[in-house]
Amino acid sequence: MAKENRPVRVAVDAMGGDHAPSELVAGAVEAARHDGVQIMLVGDPERVEAELVRLEAQDLPIKTIPSEGVILEGESPVLALRQKPRASVLVATSLLKEGHADACVTMGSTGAAMAAAAVILGVIKGIDRPALGGPVVGLAPNTVILDVGTNVDCRPSQLLGFAVIGDVFARQLWGIEKPRVAILSVGAEAGKGNRQVKEATELLEKSGLNFIGNIEADDIPHSKAEVVVCDGFVGNIVMKLTEGIGRALVEHLRSNFSDSISAESLDRIAKEVFEINNTAETRGGGPLFGVNGVSIVGHGAAKAEAVRKAIGMAKMVVESGFITKLNEELAEVHSRAGE
Amino acid sequence: MAKENRPVRVAVDAMGGDHAPSELVAGAVEAARHDGVQIMLVGDPERVEAELVRLEAQDLPIKTIPSEGVILEGESPVLALRQKPRASVLVATSLLKEGHADACVTMGSTGAAMAAAAVILGVIKGIDRPALGGPVVGLAPNTVILDVGTNVDCRPSQLLGFAVIGDVFARQLWGIEKPRVAILSVGAEAGKGNRQVKEATELLEKSGLNFIGNIEADDIPHSKAEVVVCDGFVGNIVMKLTEGIGRALVEHLRSNFSDSISAESLDRIAKEVFEINNTAETRGGGPLFGVNGVSIVGHGAAKAEAVRKAIGMAKMVVESGFITKLNEELAEVHSRAGE
Repeated sequence: MAKENRPVRVAVDAMGGDHAPSELVAGAVEAARHDGVQIMLVGDPERVEAELVRLEAQDLPIKTIPSEGVILEGESPVLALRQKPRASVLVATSLLKEGHADACVTMGSTGAAMAAAAVILGVIKGIDRPALGGPVVGLAPNTVILDVGTNVDCRPSQLLGFAVIGDVFARQLWGIEKPRVAILSVGAEAGKGNRQVKEATELLEKSGLNFIGNIEADDIPHSKAEVVVCDGFVGNIVMKLTEGIGRALVEHLRSNFSDSISAESLDRIAKEVFEINNTAETRGGGPLFGVNGVSIVGHGAAKAEAVRKAIGMAKMVVESGFITKLNEELAEVHSRAGE
Repeated sequence: MAKENRPVRVAVDAMGGDHAPSELVAGAVEAARHDGVQIMLVGDPERVEAELVRLEAQDLPIKTIPSEGVILEGESPVLALRQKPRASVLVATSLLKEGHADACVTMGSTGAAMAAAAVILGVIKGIDRPALGGPVVGLAPNTVILDVGTNVDCRPSQLLGFAVIGDVFARQLWGIEKPRVAILSVGAEAGKGNRQVKEATELLEKSGLNFIGNIEADDIPHSKAEVVVCDGFVGNIVMKLTEGIGRALVEHLRSNFSDSISAESLDRIAKEVFEINNTAETRGGGPLFGVNGVSIVGHGAAKAEAVRKAIGMAKMVVESGFITKLNEELAEVHSRAGE
């Protein structure tokens, strides 16, 4: 946690992501220059220092921390954790664990970041496994949806955990006093849904959260709730379908209207349709939910601006006191549920 | 089945849907007038006849068949089937069962239509319960997705049934020789997904279908498969999220660009964005899959044009020989699976 108004210290994995280290360093430099954060750049010192020199960043509050190797997308995280104990994402996460940093940021692989966070930071009591989520449907920028892909075949108690995480996120990050918490289902009426939804509903009703019951998928883009919980299988489909519709719709509009609508108007609409449905890059990154520390994972394709945003997200999450509140609220909900 | 080039005979539930009977009768009249079908209008004779007179349809190939009562959206179908044995949807379905009609068409309730079809027509051997599906993602007009909402917590064998239904649909209705059949999951690689996906994958691999493995949700709008199978919970979310994004995006574009893009251009784009993402009405209706007869269910809000389209769909499905082929292919797949 940031203490005594000291600037937030962020450990950045300079080697993860498609454009490492150049775009990672560039984004970190921008953050150090403009956003009032201290940066630890974790990576191959020679390559990182060369980038810093190139960017004339020697006077900024940036330290270089050496690491060896990087865990790539597609590698088995569990295996990689053993074989590359000095990999950049592990060193960055350890800096956080050891109190040298207040948060860590990586552009992937997501699997490696999750494994590193789970092993090094640990998961908070009341959570089984880390979760991913966020405002992944851009038309509902104040709706946090989770889980979106790592936890499938969830037990109902996991959905309860997601609800608490989302509730604390909406309160601490967005300042919403009593976030509406909904469960994603196939009918608005109570009792509609699959077994998982029905069982989770019983838990959510007793949770003390502002649980509003089921919502349907067409309610999501209309911002009917601040927190939408679902199995990771379902959430991942929500996230990816949104992205796919965005991309395909842009192609469709361009090929159908290029003769009849001015290029400038079409460009502006295409850009908006794309961006609002593809928030992964514009957001920069989101927290790994449920781990005991602020670990932000961004998109592998992130360029400098997205990296800077991810660092900004890290700062916001640290300053919001998210982790402390999440620990408190999970303990409360579980004591309320009589566990 | 239509025989000897006789016109297809369609029994239309004139009392179901939000705009019954006027829009139902109007759509049926258009179909009888222009589309070479014979119509049986099932409903309150006085009200139906009055509409026919108003539309000057006395000389068209339309018969009125009396029924008593209608099963409304929200009523328990099982209860209603017992309490209203002469309800319009039951009479229409019975006309098909008894060979007086080649197909029946209703605008709902969907639950009543399914219950009527399952009880009166029966389900085809190899299918557990009727399913709903179709090209519900408008950006992929040649991708049939099923189930989209009635079957949740499916066993893997049900997903196999959906695959066969989709395969026969794509071959008979769209003339695609070897439709690509995919299972919707959270990763493209084999083995990625939840328990249900993994178990269904084993069955699909042995099915003799052109099974291409997993696809992710962002592949759907890019038409990566002609048949996408999934649990009804997941398919319903795909369908409704698509609709919700369409509607919310139209509102978003209108409120963000009305100052800077000409009203005419904006209207055209808004119309296209809406229509391509809200296919339920433009399609008219789709078959109840898995029942032993051509039963088409449309949207409750359908107006005359959509009703006419639903009748056109009924005609197409009858003429395609879908039901016969589906019976054959289900028998084949099940004998191949050694059942």
